Amino acid sequence: MQIIESPQEMRNIVKSWRCAGEEIGYIPTMGALHAGHMALVEAARAANQRVVASIFVNPLQFGPHEDLDKYPRPIERDSQLLKEAGCDILFAPKVDAIYDGEEFTHGIHTYVEVNKLGDMWEGAVRPGHLRGVATVLVRFFNIVPAQRAYFGEKDYQQLKVVERVVQDLRYDLEIVPVATVREEDGLALSSRNVYLSEAERQVAPTLHQALQVGVTLVRNGEREVSTIGAAIQAVCDASQLIKVQYVAIVNAETLAPLDTLDGQPARALIAARLGSTRLIDNIAI
Amino acid sequence: MQIIESPQEMRNIVKSWRCAGEEIGYIPTMGALHAGHMALVEAARAANQRVVASIFVNPLQFGPHEDLDKYPRPIERDSQLLKEAGCDILFAPKVDAIYDGEEFTHGIHTYVEVNKLGDMWEGAVRPGHLRGVATVLVRFFNIVPAQRAYFGEKDYQQLKVVERVVQDLRYDLEIVPVATVREEDGLALSSRNVYLSEAERQVAPTLHQALQVGVTLVRNGEREVSTIGAAIQAVCDASQLIKVQYVAIVNAETLAPLDTLDGQPARALIAARLGSTRLIDNIAI
Repeated sequence: MQIIESPQEMRNIVKSWRCAGEEIGYIPTMGALHAGHMALVEAARAANQRVVASIFVNPLQFGPHEDLDKYPRPIERDSQLLKEAGCDILFAPKVDAIYDGEEFTHGIHTYVEVNKLGDMWEGAVRPGHLRGVATVLVRFFNIVPAQRAYFGEKDYQQLKVVERVVQDLRYDLEIVPVATVREEDGLALSSRNVYLSEAERQVAPTLHQALQVGVTLVRNGEREVSTIGAAIQAVCDASQLIKVQYVAIVNAETLAPLDTLDGQPARALIAARLGSTRLIDNIAI
Repeated sequence: MQIIESPQEMRNIVKSWRCAGEEIGYIPTMGALHAGHMALVEAARAANQRVVASIFVNPLQFGPHEDLDKYPRPIERDSQLLKEAGCDILFAPKVDAIYDGEEFTHGIHTYVEVNKLGDMWEGAVRPGHLRGVATVLVRFFNIVPAQRAYFGEKDYQQLKVVERVVQDLRYDLEIVPVATVREEDGLALSSRNVYLSEAERQVAPTLHQALQVGVTLVRNGEREVSTIGAAIQAVCDASQLIKVQYVAIVNAETLAPLDTLDGQPARALIAARLGSTRLIDNIAI
């Protein structure tokens, strides 16, 4: 596996592959890789001749009081994992290759804004977060012009924002969603799980269990969103360590809140704080 | 010359040219072509093996009370001009190939916003205009992945916004500015000049003359921007038919207003109404 820092070198390799008729699967990550990321690499490996993963902890998607500085960066371990998974290239640019110096001193000029989809749920709790995600991904898509890019369903709203951007801006790129990978007890894998204390880690699977309670209610015929939402919330509230930020039952594409389930694809979203750690999860409902 | 409506067909041709090692010059236009556009085609022809021009009257960059409906669309004549100029492809997509239907009924989701540069001058007089330009150009750049794109200096702020977007979002694209083409009497060519009454057309060159008065002042040693701006304004105000919207003397890259000329590249910008027609012009100062 080759490790590349230069955007121009990265771009030239991908273009030469494309001109040789090869298909490229791309996995953009912030590193601190876990089995969820490796499922993305595996999916890319299965459908493409070439696989590129990038690691870039994007300052633009962190709020001023968020965990940018302490975000884990185990680059040696990540690199080893990607190599073992059969990744062809790890693209690991420095911050100043992706942002010009004056962008951080004088402010970013060019933003990719995703209205509505980018403003609700995670966008409301973390202002600017999804705009930061969309803006950096467009930069990476322009540097790694792959045929397919892989995103985990764990960050469901991010997935929908990326699908929207790629469709709206007419990128020649297929966004491939990959199912959330979970611990045996149901906790969705996340690079932030390492922040959890032992006690928090014990109760963390409650988020997934609560969502499953919602699914069971629906299977048993419940259609009232307020009832389903209240049940999910109640499961979480039973644990004092879990502070729910939102429970939302939404249209699976627009993420607009629903009143009743009327057969359209729906998704239940949850965000909660466990101590100083923020976790999100979601489920098809 | 081939005329293409389909974005996918357009993209495939450009990609095949690129893979064959050919360089492509791209000229995005709204049609109603004049000698200014033809200078862009000529510049593209001289530096590339292939030349693509597009014609698309972009609804997103028109304000609600602007001239979208009456904007001239002489497609037969435009097509003939491009053919004679040696253009390889005219890309003329329908509106619904560039915008999804629901984008106009439910609103655009994804905007490319250019802060500061996009908010001042033209952005202030025409809110949303430069955002509309940036958003549609990104779509076209993703459909026509050329090596070079050509823009006239007449729309100077647009040129700077495009340079910014391409640099910030890491497009692999060189933006080539081409000098403004003028009538013999100095009026900058514009598709909107056809709107001018005979009397308005008579006084329209005053804009360029006023800017030249500014240049002469500077050549004679004037450094105070307020003095230079007042002189430009006075030349225009002498004609009752000209209603100046702004005269600005700015940093040539950031378009931030200057107090004094201190040797950094500067530009004088002017916008004015002549009856119901809006004209803009600019000059290096």
